[in-house]
Amino acid sequence: MFGTTTDGVNEMSTGVVRVGLLGLGTVGGGVIKTIRSQQEKLASRLGKRIEIVKALVRDSEKERAVYLDRSVLTTDFEDVLKSDVDIIVEVMGGVEPTYDYVRALIEKGCHVVTANKELLAKRGTELVDLANRHQVHLAYEASVAGGIPILGVLRQFLRTNDISGVRGILNGTTNFILTKMEQEQLSYQEVLKQAQELGYAEADPRSDVEGFDAMYKLYILAQLVYGESLPLAEVNRKGIADLTAGQIRIASELGYRIKLIAQAEQTGEGIRLSVEPTMLPLSHPLAQIQDAFNAVQLSGNIVGDLLFTGRGAGELPTASAVVEDLAYLLTQPFTPHPAWREREGGAETTQETEAKSFCYVEGTGPAATPDRVLQFLRLAGVEVHKLKVQFDLGGVLRAGLITTGLTDEHSDLLRSDFGLQVRCFPLLGSSAE
Amino acid sequence: MFGTTTDGVNEMSTGVVRVGLLGLGTVGGGVIKTIRSQQEKLASRLGKRIEIVKALVRDSEKERAVYLDRSVLTTDFEDVLKSDVDIIVEVMGGVEPTYDYVRALIEKGCHVVTANKELLAKRGTELVDLANRHQVHLAYEASVAGGIPILGVLRQFLRTNDISGVRGILNGTTNFILTKMEQEQLSYQEVLKQAQELGYAEADPRSDVEGFDAMYKLYILAQLVYGESLPLAEVNRKGIADLTAGQIRIASELGYRIKLIAQAEQTGEGIRLSVEPTMLPLSHPLAQIQDAFNAVQLSGNIVGDLLFTGRGAGELPTASAVVEDLAYLLTQPFTPHPAWREREGGAETTQETEAKSFCYVEGTGPAATPDRVLQFLRLAGVEVHKLKVQFDLGGVLRAGLITTGLTDEHSDLLRSDFGLQVRCFPLLGSSAE
Repeated sequence: MFGTTTDGVNEMSTGVVRVGLLGLGTVGGGVIKTIRSQQEKLASRLGKRIEIVKALVRDSEKERAVYLDRSVLTTDFEDVLKSDVDIIVEVMGGVEPTYDYVRALIEKGCHVVTANKELLAKRGTELVDLANRHQVHLAYEASVAGGIPILGVLRQFLRTNDISGVRGILNGTTNFILTKMEQEQLSYQEVLKQAQELGYAEADPRSDVEGFDAMYKLYILAQLVYGESLPLAEVNRKGIADLTAGQIRIASELGYRIKLIAQAEQTGEGIRLSVEPTMLPLSHPLAQIQDAFNAVQLSGNIVGDLLFTGRGAGELPTASAVVEDLAYLLTQPFTPHPAWREREGGAETTQETEAKSFCYVEGTGPAATPDRVLQFLRLAGVEVHKLKVQFDLGGVLRAGLITTGLTDEHSDLLRSDFGLQVRCFPLLGSSAE
Repeated sequence: MFGTTTDGVNEMSTGVVRVGLLGLGTVGGGVIKTIRSQQEKLASRLGKRIEIVKALVRDSEKERAVYLDRSVLTTDFEDVLKSDVDIIVEVMGGVEPTYDYVRALIEKGCHVVTANKELLAKRGTELVDLANRHQVHLAYEASVAGGIPILGVLRQFLRTNDISGVRGILNGTTNFILTKMEQEQLSYQEVLKQAQELGYAEADPRSDVEGFDAMYKLYILAQLVYGESLPLAEVNRKGIADLTAGQIRIASELGYRIKLIAQAEQTGEGIRLSVEPTMLPLSHPLAQIQDAFNAVQLSGNIVGDLLFTGRGAGELPTASAVVEDLAYLLTQPFTPHPAWREREGGAETTQETEAKSFCYVEGTGPAATPDRVLQFLRLAGVEVHKLKVQFDLGGVLRAGLITTGLTDEHSDLLRSDFGLQVRCFPLLGSSAE
């Protein structure tokens, strides 16, 4: 199965791919399970057997769901470096010391498969350059949208199209939380607790709920789509931790759904990247993506809109992307990776006064009446397309408005003069509109 | 732009890709427009300029939306054969004489890009073999699901996964018709006429509405997913021409939608291919695919379910796939195409008595009452999960039933003993179930 002869050391030494693993957590375990369950398919495609020769772990005594021979485990990176691996699979996460490890392995001529979006978003420009100089593959399909092969599609099959925009739901944890908040009318805190118990959210959920994870993935998508990205500090990033059940309910009653949308757009002045809670009409394809699913929508000038959906995280979907990447690169000759660039000072994130937005207001003061608010907005030249008003037993006004022309100044006046809490969200139109 | 020197015949002769076109209809025109609008991108990727050197047309005098020099047009295939083309783009459709033309060009060492699903489903095994023997590329992304790069994904990025099933909406015309029938409560004939006026349906709509087009595409998908397909005569194929507004309305009232679903499944006895109107709960991702959109859903054992959505037909989406294919193959060394095989006598399409189905009955006779029908089904051991009944002013009973265990024999008895028209549809469960 692994070659034309079966009788010797030589055949074996050329018939084996020596894989090293950095990290053996959820995804690492999934990678080992996948390599084992699919070993026949892999061997027949590659003409070689895949062998895990070394795995860097924090604790070599820990009980694990997958068995690896004790001699394979190490807590010392130098053991990995000395192990003569052909390919390293990096699933330990983080930037330090991960970057130094990956760098040292590339310098030894080792191919890299990584699922680490933070590493790529923070040090990707250097890693791409380093991999090119050492003529090794750098593969990272697993870093964006789990098992959805979106990066491969962009690199291979959508290179003739001009891509004007890419937007998606790139974080499964926050999508799960928003879905449950709407379906079960629960508060953010209640659902977060559920998600943590189910293993959908980390004990420290900030990377997910504050939008960092989605931002790293968006940064990578922008590199592939536009050949450049923005410095992370210039990404307009907002999380979901301050969303309330009231906002979600009124949005729903108006026929909309709030999603954490990551979006990269090409504008006249450069690219603009944003991750923020966004209102979508229920007819929008991204509004249909529920629970922990991910989706990426691309707009090509020839092909039109394409949508790719799948599980964006978890042991096996991510492991699938890692192992598919690993097998693919082993069948490809080295070709230089297109350079990654960062361009500062792209498009200003000025408010488009012509854009529609959803504005949620809440308050009790004497000026907090729908009539007064509407009168103020009319005099200010703000158009109100739809309005949904609720009063609870305590006399608290809660209202959702779909508006055109509402600016931060208007919001400030609603706060100061009407005693209202105000939260505005951008609104994505339906694809059909 | 096209090389390092610009001063000579030699540079030009190596710096040009000579493309021949078989057919210059809607898609052919889109291919020329795309090559022209994207020429800078193509040239920088390929290091070569693409030139259309010959185009086979039926009528060289006809007015066309795209300009081609009169000397490029020909009505004689021999002119194409003599033109020393590097790549042929086949967008003329049909099997005869198309197969003979493509064969002759492959034998001259010409690469082939085709959008012709009928040709591939009927003569693909021979064409793949012929292309391998002459070491030329045979590329056909455009033949399935228009601009959605589903075949490329299957060939490159999902080869480690075992794919247990592939299903989708592969025909835009029928999906458009079903969408309008539901939304506007119109009859099949009324909507077909609209679709023909809009250019969504052909004057002779049989290839679309009887499921042939979707069947050809499904055949191709099966070759890529399973490495084999069934002879076309063994595909379970049903069209949409006999669907009524009443069936669609009752389905909708029960929370379901009827779609023309193409499906390939691996069973213990082989693969099974079907194209037929199928009931989907509204929560099923494929139920959300409306109008002329296409979608393909894959179930991988590692990655889980993936869904790919986009415009499946039309001038530019299909042209996008043709030109992306053309550019991709020009950057790839020849590697043999996996052989296509047909295996006869696969899985029997026996009725699974445990499967849920949606059954629509209509009639006026004295026995056509809900009570009697339900009593008969109960005694026959058929489980009825949901029932929706309507009587119109003329006393006609119309009912929709979600059942388990209903067989063709039961349907026959409902016809003979109760004087009912009966139409049953298979039912796909929600992914979440």
